[in-house]
Amino acid sequence: MKLWYNSIVKFLNGEKNMSIRVGIYGYGNLGKGVELAIAQNPDMQAVGVFTRRDPSSVKTQTGIPVYATNEVNAFVDKIDVMILCGGSSTDLPKQTPALASIFNVVDSFDTHAKIPEHLAKVHAEAMQANKTAIISVGWDPGLFSLARCYAGAVLPVGNDYTFWGKGVSQGHSDAIRRIEGVADAKQYTIPVEEALNRVRKGENPMLTTREKHKRECFVVAKEGADLAKIEREIVTMPNYFADYDTTVHFITQEELNEKHGGLPHGGVVIRTGQTGKAQENKHRIEYSLQLDSNSEFTSSVLVAYARAIFRMNKEGNFGCKTVLDVPPMYLCTESREEIIQKLL
Amino acid sequence: MKLWYNSIVKFLNGEKNMSIRVGIYGYGNLGKGVELAIAQNPDMQAVGVFTRRDPSSVKTQTGIPVYATNEVNAFVDKIDVMILCGGSSTDLPKQTPALASIFNVVDSFDTHAKIPEHLAKVHAEAMQANKTAIISVGWDPGLFSLARCYAGAVLPVGNDYTFWGKGVSQGHSDAIRRIEGVADAKQYTIPVEEALNRVRKGENPMLTTREKHKRECFVVAKEGADLAKIEREIVTMPNYFADYDTTVHFITQEELNEKHGGLPHGGVVIRTGQTGKAQENKHRIEYSLQLDSNSEFTSSVLVAYARAIFRMNKEGNFGCKTVLDVPPMYLCTESREEIIQKLL
Repeated sequence: MKLWYNSIVKFLNGEKNMSIRVGIYGYGNLGKGVELAIAQNPDMQAVGVFTRRDPSSVKTQTGIPVYATNEVNAFVDKIDVMILCGGSSTDLPKQTPALASIFNVVDSFDTHAKIPEHLAKVHAEAMQANKTAIISVGWDPGLFSLARCYAGAVLPVGNDYTFWGKGVSQGHSDAIRRIEGVADAKQYTIPVEEALNRVRKGENPMLTTREKHKRECFVVAKEGADLAKIEREIVTMPNYFADYDTTVHFITQEELNEKHGGLPHGGVVIRTGQTGKAQENKHRIEYSLQLDSNSEFTSSVLVAYARAIFRMNKEGNFGCKTVLDVPPMYLCTESREEIIQKLL
Repeated sequence: MKLWYNSIVKFLNGEKNMSIRVGIYGYGNLGKGVELAIAQNPDMQAVGVFTRRDPSSVKTQTGIPVYATNEVNAFVDKIDVMILCGGSSTDLPKQTPALASIFNVVDSFDTHAKIPEHLAKVHAEAMQANKTAIISVGWDPGLFSLARCYAGAVLPVGNDYTFWGKGVSQGHSDAIRRIEGVADAKQYTIPVEEALNRVRKGENPMLTTREKHKRECFVVAKEGADLAKIEREIVTMPNYFADYDTTVHFITQEELNEKHGGLPHGGVVIRTGQTGKAQENKHRIEYSLQLDSNSEFTSSVLVAYARAIFRMNKEGNFGCKTVLDVPPMYLCTESREEIIQKLL
């Protein structure tokens, strides 16, 4: 009903002239989420999906057209912002700089150590083309980065903590699926309650990896597989599980599908700080997310930043940005007067 | 020790040349908090306090000089940002526009309905003088406004809730003190736990004033006062208490001083929203503060925005801003490269 309502709003607003025309590059979970998020924003329209697959094999959820990625050059005057929905390991390092040379772009690049390098490449392309780009948009990096920035600036004497979960880690689920004898698996990252409580109390604890998060795995074994061996391989797996307290549950495929089908996630950024002549007053700033769908929420953040990037480009503010560069007001649909009246 | 450490850092950095020179206009709780907050920020120095009282009667906490407000014109080249620490009812409506004509200024104006009018006046003065101003800085308005802005932009289909407390409301405490027979009083605003839980569950309840917050009063009665009459006057007081469930406790002055001497406050901004084709996925964004000292925390926010305003002015971005106009990165001491590396 909301989709229908927005269509009416868009029609009444004279969609063709007024709305921000968005392209979706890649159509996995993130691309699908972007398509639905655009439908929730009356000032935006989805021009189409660009895919490496055969376009005739892809059916979109809201009926928007599907094009092949090699058709994208024909859209330089038809798309205001391209949202890139590929992966950080191989897609985005190539796609974002390439597309920033012809479109304003938004991506969710999340390989932390490579952000400066990615930023520099995208910036060079965007500057040359008078385009505006933003990288590493989502919730971490993204909204959690903002939470750390504001809290650290306001309480310079203090400590930061980030906890992730309870939520599904796709990387860890994949790692389990690659073990011999495993048919399917889902892994939850869970903050350790005791650690969270110590942080909230302002104890400023030094926490090891094991003390911060635990891991819970739901595994479907193939018929006749050695369960003890699978469990041992999981809990001793370097980087992924060895440094954590890990619990393994063997369940049926039916139970996995039924009870663990979603992609929930979330987390919390906490800063505890002190003020006063003898730092005698304690303060706590806490920013938390609880999400039924990790990918749909991330998509919603991408779409809000597409609006901001569109505006910054209109103002002649070119190059590659991050969420930390964007004035919050640029994310909102309303006028500055309305926002100040309503939100301040 | 931190103050001493920062002095060394400032000396090594060549304080005279590099730090942001801040003036403090008004020396109540907020001004005192600003003085201490500046000492926590190595890139800033407090030039002095400006007071309407006899300067010789005012002793500062860190030994910074005290001047009369009518000496302020002599400081136009000695102060980069003036932080105004007066009240919203009578001080700031006059002081902020007047001082914005000669300084970059920061204030904490919080009379919500009058913000647009105040903004327009300050903007006109600042534009004419090539100065940069920011009004309504603090936590609400301020950090809570930011939380509402980001959450609303990211989840356009959803509902916002703001709860205040548990914390001391100075306005309500004052109202009780004006009742005949009352010697002293402290009033706490407390969110109703049941309402908070319903919001967190995503029930999107419509909540009345009474359902959201309750009020708890600790009252010291004068000798021989009619306690029943005082209690009746409190709980039936229009605007302040009549619309709330209010509890009144009579205690001794000693107990009040001992157990209720501080000015703690806090609160939470919650947005619950839905995504998905049938809005089937629920999400919750929650931003909360728990503060030992309301005024010292507010002061810390003012000081962080003084840094941002100083930078915006250097870049030629003049006029009156709000927290919603400021790119988050401008609040931090580090370089853009360091911030991206550390926070993103």
